[in-house]
Amino acid sequence: MIEDKNPQRTSISQLGEFGLIEHLTKNFEIKHSSTIKGIGDDAAVIDFKDKKAIVTTDLLVENVHFDLSYMPLKHLGYKSVMVNLSDVYAMNAKATQITVSIAVSNRFPLEALEELYAGIKHACDLYEVDLIGGDTTSSNKGLLITVTALGEANQEDIVYRNTAKSNDLLVVSGDLGGAYLGLQILEREKEVFKVNPQNQPDLDMYSYIIERQLKPEARKDIPELLKKLEVKPTAMIDISDGLSSEIIHLCKQSKVGCNLYEDKIPLDPQVISTSEEFNLSSTTVALSGGEDYELLFTVAQEDFPKIKANPHLSIIGHMTQESEGMHLITRANTKIPLQARGWNSFEENEKE
Amino acid sequence: MIEDKNPQRTSISQLGEFGLIEHLTKNFEIKHSSTIKGIGDDAAVIDFKDKKAIVTTDLLVENVHFDLSYMPLKHLGYKSVMVNLSDVYAMNAKATQITVSIAVSNRFPLEALEELYAGIKHACDLYEVDLIGGDTTSSNKGLLITVTALGEANQEDIVYRNTAKSNDLLVVSGDLGGAYLGLQILEREKEVFKVNPQNQPDLDMYSYIIERQLKPEARKDIPELLKKLEVKPTAMIDISDGLSSEIIHLCKQSKVGCNLYEDKIPLDPQVISTSEEFNLSSTTVALSGGEDYELLFTVAQEDFPKIKANPHLSIIGHMTQESEGMHLITRANTKIPLQARGWNSFEENEKE
Repeated sequence: MIEDKNPQRTSISQLGEFGLIEHLTKNFEIKHSSTIKGIGDDAAVIDFKDKKAIVTTDLLVENVHFDLSYMPLKHLGYKSVMVNLSDVYAMNAKATQITVSIAVSNRFPLEALEELYAGIKHACDLYEVDLIGGDTTSSNKGLLITVTALGEANQEDIVYRNTAKSNDLLVVSGDLGGAYLGLQILEREKEVFKVNPQNQPDLDMYSYIIERQLKPEARKDIPELLKKLEVKPTAMIDISDGLSSEIIHLCKQSKVGCNLYEDKIPLDPQVISTSEEFNLSSTTVALSGGEDYELLFTVAQEDFPKIKANPHLSIIGHMTQESEGMHLITRANTKIPLQARGWNSFEENEKE
Repeated sequence: MIEDKNPQRTSISQLGEFGLIEHLTKNFEIKHSSTIKGIGDDAAVIDFKDKKAIVTTDLLVENVHFDLSYMPLKHLGYKSVMVNLSDVYAMNAKATQITVSIAVSNRFPLEALEELYAGIKHACDLYEVDLIGGDTTSSNKGLLITVTALGEANQEDIVYRNTAKSNDLLVVSGDLGGAYLGLQILEREKEVFKVNPQNQPDLDMYSYIIERQLKPEARKDIPELLKKLEVKPTAMIDISDGLSSEIIHLCKQSKVGCNLYEDKIPLDPQVISTSEEFNLSSTTVALSGGEDYELLFTVAQEDFPKIKANPHLSIIGHMTQESEGMHLITRANTKIPLQARGWNSFEENEKE
């Protein structure tokens, strides 16, 4: 599909590795004074001063993490930065730099990589991070992107996963389940397209959930908001794998239990209507969907007044003693054990 | 070939991503007090204190950068760390942490990844770096490794590529050309093996150059040695692509020229004898071979007495005015322009 979109194709082998990196990164600007040296030496140099450095890395593989038949390369570039920044924000830190490494087969023309880097640049501009390095190499098959994100935080502001306490409130930003359902819509349309390539689908009614899948936003605003509200979470994690598995991470690492309330899980109207269309429980979708890149955190009970009215935040439960286990309290007020890969196992529980 | 080596095979899908990372990294110890948080949260946390942070990343792809038919996985793990640490040392810095991300197809059993991580651990132990994070995911085909290395240095100690001066001496550590010839031997033996799998080759006479290819060592000792000698290089780069292309990088970025003396290029006896065997010029091999991971640097003339007798260092030339260009002075005292991808073009020049 890539090939068809570009009337003009330039082979990447024409440029060579150094020429390619130079070409793709020439429009990137350094925004942070902490970036002493960016691209162009054996390594980048950063001055974290009195802050602690935050480091995270994620690898995205074609046809495992993304499908280029419906994922525009510009969006892919953007998303590959977002999934990493999200991890930095989940430490209650500020993202400051990234490195981007790609392995790419010859079937990609230069114009395709320019699109990819346009998305990366858009993310860098909007989220104020500096591209400081990377590696570009050939692959035998497909496209693979590794991003390492760096950030900074004062030691006292950093929030880990393993420090939630019993009785803390469980809070989530934004709404859940959209990215997963967006993917279902895109997969369905891909099948329709295969049968009838002339079909022009009207996807307006799915615009929000498709955007959640194709162009997720990392919650840069949440650490900033929490600072303004003078709330330091007791523990925090980002939601890349679905609510239930992230709650289980928080609980296990913090050695606490949890009660999650089904009726408190924030859902967009499109998530509710599309779940119905696919004959899925929207709760199951939110619990197991993944890729929402919202932040899940715990706060002390006394912080309740500071966050209760905030439109960006939903209180969805509270932590308990470890011995009480991890449960979902359904709308019908029954208690169901939370399961990590909730999809199948949870479906079975619902039928009980 | 992987499959045949392991009588007992455990599928990696049995463990799941989190189980896999935990299993592979459970024996890694944190050595640096600067590593506040390693593996196990959304991101790692590092305290660089008053030092500057050094960041570099490299990506190795199966059948592009390595061939598992003769590269043992343990060596591959080791080498993937070395190529990154080399970039940190080339900044005259100390390597302190790494992240390792792998994309791997299901054809690799768990035991294969354990071998890979045994090599990574050996590198971490020997070079005193902490494994602080990474990502493990599936690939459609083959194995791919991305390592990001972090290091630290005092600002005044950091050495860039673009600060060489005219009249500086050009110095290289160790000897050159071995890794490339080691690869030629391994490729030749692979072809022999294809024809006659019963053949047991005697590779003793190539042991040094094969080790240079399969298990290169990054020059951790060189920044330490230079500190002891009280020499601060004026510019430095590591030799991953062959001497001539690295000299050209140094010259172009520093806006200087260079005279490189053919008779000063350090060569191991195995490099000389194997070059003869392959009917290659050992100078061409050293200039264009690559993967030696030695350090190339420039020092002020007044530092000559401090380095002249050192067995680890060879003075191979001197920098000139930019207008004088970049040249090799041959044993026959003729002046040949240095070329970046020297292999073919240089061969032509020699015939002139």
